[in-house]
Amino acid sequence: MRASVAPVKVIRMQEDVSSGADDIIVVEEPLEIRLGYGPTEDRKEIPLSVTMRTPGNDAELAVGFLYTEGIVKDPAEVVRVVPCQNVKAEERGNVVRAELHPSVELDPARWQRNFYTSSSCGVCGKSSIDAVHAQCDRPLGKTPSMGSASITALPERMHAAQTVFKHTGGIHAAALFNAAGELLILREDVGRHNAVDKVIGALLASKPDNQQPTTDNLLLLVSGRAGFELVQKCVVAGIPAMAAVGAPSSLAVQLAQDSGLLLIGFLRGDRFNVYAGKLAD
Amino acid sequence: MRASVAPVKVIRMQEDVSSGADDIIVVEEPLEIRLGYGPTEDRKEIPLSVTMRTPGNDAELAVGFLYTEGIVKDPAEVVRVVPCQNVKAEERGNVVRAELHPSVELDPARWQRNFYTSSSCGVCGKSSIDAVHAQCDRPLGKTPSMGSASITALPERMHAAQTVFKHTGGIHAAALFNAAGELLILREDVGRHNAVDKVIGALLASKPDNQQPTTDNLLLLVSGRAGFELVQKCVVAGIPAMAAVGAPSSLAVQLAQDSGLLLIGFLRGDRFNVYAGKLAD
Repeated sequence: MRASVAPVKVIRMQEDVSSGADDIIVVEEPLEIRLGYGPTEDRKEIPLSVTMRTPGNDAELAVGFLYTEGIVKDPAEVVRVVPCQNVKAEERGNVVRAELHPSVELDPARWQRNFYTSSSCGVCGKSSIDAVHAQCDRPLGKTPSMGSASITALPERMHAAQTVFKHTGGIHAAALFNAAGELLILREDVGRHNAVDKVIGALLASKPDNQQPTTDNLLLLVSGRAGFELVQKCVVAGIPAMAAVGAPSSLAVQLAQDSGLLLIGFLRGDRFNVYAGKLAD
Repeated sequence: MRASVAPVKVIRMQEDVSSGADDIIVVEEPLEIRLGYGPTEDRKEIPLSVTMRTPGNDAELAVGFLYTEGIVKDPAEVVRVVPCQNVKAEERGNVVRAELHPSVELDPARWQRNFYTSSSCGVCGKSSIDAVHAQCDRPLGKTPSMGSASITALPERMHAAQTVFKHTGGIHAAALFNAAGELLILREDVGRHNAVDKVIGALLASKPDNQQPTTDNLLLLVSGRAGFELVQKCVVAGIPAMAAVGAPSSLAVQLAQDSGLLLIGFLRGDRFNVYAGKLAD
């Protein structure tokens, strides 16, 4: 497995004084996701996407990506994710293949539609939101009932668990909490969308036989801002609440309001803003 | 033109006390970029990409994107960028068409290669870096000669000029400075890559007749982290120095070292780290 941090020599400058030092930086490498599909006697393969990610939990990333982008509708459609061996030595560890169940009839036009949604059905906020709803087969879980003191405690809890951030100071995090404020899953990645996909992939993997996990009373916390893409992933996964340390965007707020998602922004210190949904009483 | 900020009602929570309030958030909307190409008597159009962006400076964004992604090698290939009128009412302002010069022979395979570089030539850090070098026809400009006090003054200068951030607290910024520390161009966007594309598009537009601008003594400052994609855009545009308020990634550092780019990270207060290149004496 590839490392998620790397050593580097730097020159530190402070008040015009320079000194050589050893530093640790976060690793960023491409990951190619391929899809294996078709009946057992006639398996086929297509390349699906390349994302720049921090190595680690690549199988979760692949499953989370397939699910939140609507390429599979049910986690049971993915039998397993394996590192590809038939690649050049320098690519090893950067290519995975997700094996779809032989009974899944893959319609490449289906996922192409997902990637080019905006072009085909109108380039505006409303059509972007409609496309997300079209992807969702099931409602969000039950909103967690949490007091504001429980919510303001979450960022510190996530921060304390961030191992890569401690070393590098430069990585996004996403964490799943239950209504008691317990941290269930934490993942870090150089790309914020990857961190969310890894968390959702881990949630899906936590159920035996790839059953749909319940998403009642879950809250997803992200270290950065709440843009449309992250709220989309949360909604598609059925998670009922999302909180961001940073600001939300207009389209993220609209999607949350339309979907019944509890959306919290600027969660810092003893305060936060509620942009959509309601804190449970 | 669409607005770049929007009003929203929020519930502010502080120490368990809630109050309704008016807030301002940054607008995020899709932008579709189309290409018009071919001889005057037989113009053709293809959709190129959809990006989630903050409205404003869309023509710069399109030109910067075309240039930093290697779809055009020379800014003179783009005659103009116009908002498309033949779209639905709700899409108006979210679709632009970049008109390539009739003499440009567009090879769709060329830009498809750019988007799928990693798949076709190896999925690893080295191949990602090689792909960037293959895109670059000319060397970086001359590195600006700046003392550390000049460099540490830059973030505050950018911050003071950020109008959207002042209202929303939630937007990325990219700014171009000269060696005297003067702010030349500032752009804000919900997507960090868009902010950089807008700055580079504005730089290209600043020269009459779309000549290649000189990039000697320029430094690009970004408000977030220095990932591979941002360093790539800087290198392709020939800008010799880049500084980030946040951390760089491993692949960003490698690309900077291989390209002779001065790369500064963690530029905060009176300190920063030099990850690649050298401060000029």
